[in-house]
Amino acid sequence: MRLVDLVTPALVVDAAAFEHNLTTMAAALPGARLRPHIKAHKCTSLAQRQAAVGHESFTCATIRECEGLAAAGLGADVLLANEILDARRVGALVDAGHRITVTVDSPATIEAAVAGGVREVVIDVNVGLPRCGCSVEDAPRLADLARSRNLSVRGVQGYEGHVVGIESAETRSEKCRLAMELLVAAHEAVGGELMTGGGTGTYLINTWSDEIQAGSYALMDTAYGRLGLPFRQALYVLATVVSTSTPDSGGWSVANAGLKAFGMDHGLPAIDGSNIWFCSDEHLTFDPPRRVGDHVLVAPAHVDPTVAYHERMYVADLASGEVLETWPVDLRGW
Amino acid sequence: MRLVDLVTPALVVDAAAFEHNLTTMAAALPGARLRPHIKAHKCTSLAQRQAAVGHESFTCATIRECEGLAAAGLGADVLLANEILDARRVGALVDAGHRITVTVDSPATIEAAVAGGVREVVIDVNVGLPRCGCSVEDAPRLADLARSRNLSVRGVQGYEGHVVGIESAETRSEKCRLAMELLVAAHEAVGGELMTGGGTGTYLINTWSDEIQAGSYALMDTAYGRLGLPFRQALYVLATVVSTSTPDSGGWSVANAGLKAFGMDHGLPAIDGSNIWFCSDEHLTFDPPRRVGDHVLVAPAHVDPTVAYHERMYVADLASGEVLETWPVDLRGW
Repeated sequence: MRLVDLVTPALVVDAAAFEHNLTTMAAALPGARLRPHIKAHKCTSLAQRQAAVGHESFTCATIRECEGLAAAGLGADVLLANEILDARRVGALVDAGHRITVTVDSPATIEAAVAGGVREVVIDVNVGLPRCGCSVEDAPRLADLARSRNLSVRGVQGYEGHVVGIESAETRSEKCRLAMELLVAAHEAVGGELMTGGGTGTYLINTWSDEIQAGSYALMDTAYGRLGLPFRQALYVLATVVSTSTPDSGGWSVANAGLKAFGMDHGLPAIDGSNIWFCSDEHLTFDPPRRVGDHVLVAPAHVDPTVAYHERMYVADLASGEVLETWPVDLRGW
Repeated sequence: MRLVDLVTPALVVDAAAFEHNLTTMAAALPGARLRPHIKAHKCTSLAQRQAAVGHESFTCATIRECEGLAAAGLGADVLLANEILDARRVGALVDAGHRITVTVDSPATIEAAVAGGVREVVIDVNVGLPRCGCSVEDAPRLADLARSRNLSVRGVQGYEGHVVGIESAETRSEKCRLAMELLVAAHEAVGGELMTGGGTGTYLINTWSDEIQAGSYALMDTAYGRLGLPFRQALYVLATVVSTSTPDSGGWSVANAGLKAFGMDHGLPAIDGSNIWFCSDEHLTFDPPRRVGDHVLVAPAHVDPTVAYHERMYVADLASGEVLETWPVDLRGW
């Protein structure tokens, strides 16, 4: 199968760039130093490739991601890095012999873990992003509560999500340090073998966490592309030019990929050498005009919500146009 | 089943608001005066409800939407309001006895229709939105070409997508008139029984088109909610509050619905009485804080790309919390 034979829009992975990203990260953070985040790609085939280069523990954002990894034989050490209030589906995975650890940040999430049959937790600590996570001061109290309820506390998590996307490397380093000083303090008070956090934007500068939860590095997007990281853009939406304005009306073309093919929270996607005008539900208007029938590769601004729109991704040799593998995006939904 | 029993995030339809929207539109544009656009909801169960109140011809944006309607017995008169360059799947539907008309705006799309076995087309005319559509001047030439290739030309389409969302009713009316004057001119030159266009924002003021392609009216979103239309917000994402900050840290809560639950191109979704801070992949941070375990109903800013993230929608009586029906979002993908 060739790229030109695909029904468009289609999610395409540049095989060479993907391999480069995988080996670059495995060299920098070998084995358990990286706990790849599944939310970025929602794809067990891709996770199998991450496991094959040595990363056998994973991070998930949803229960369905945990279930999918377990079903694919990748449930040796999965961290559900999210608060949940109904843990029964996770308890069922634990009962079936998978190791699933859940983050908790409140008495309610601890009680939910107990009620659902979860056995291991990590105390989620707020390190500066106003999202989940208890205060540093509350962390040991919650750890005591969890242990009193017969949960094993493996350590602490602190995700510096307010830091990973900062374009200035200096500011990113400084804010990462401030965030991780909070996590170190919480870890000292909580104990356990695990200090987990980090992302693609801090994978090298977060030297405090035992393991880094990066996910975007494998496929990348234009937002992370601005950070000067050694990872290459490996993800595109292949689209077909379906309409081109007549020469006297200003000059634009329309490709058949739009708001249902791209996560838009980070802004418009990009075509090399083109200016994107706007995105409609199923269309992308851009200039300079191209011929009707041309194919264009469109790089998403944000990888995670882009992948979540697609049923599968096609791994291709972009130089030859050959499709090498088809990977189902099998961990969508909740 | 009750709303509180659902796995969250979950797409919820307010049954009463949906019924109101359906009957309001059917009274304003009865029967064939409305050609409901499937792209807004991608759901054959919902389309069945639109057919049941009299709208038996539909508008689609993708071939998969056409295929799904045909399979559901709703293929009596479907307009694929989009340019395509591989029409073979549409031709197969036509061969199977469904009436599928395709828009064309270039010699290439006309040749694709012929090659794919399409028999009926509409000339797509640009009425001011820089997207698909030929110029008014080119419309009769393309109609001649289509007829010379033994295609039946049913008329013209002109979608005033640059007009439907304008908040000022006066400006919207004026710009709608300018757009439709172009379409009327094209129609006079092309002939055929059909002049099709329009959307939820112009359903009453576009008095030129024979039929209106509105879709958003059935479920609505906060963007269309600002236009003073008689339709009610019927679509929500039900989410669970999974984390709340400690009292001394500023005061926010986090619900478990994020960038993979909401189309974000129109901005942040809304919770009645709350301020949304930001959206992460699986989280929504907002204030004032709520109790962990509370449920919140979140209204999307843009209905179409929101629905496309979800596998199903739950039709519910919001007053009693009872789930009445479950509708698969079965027309996603391409």
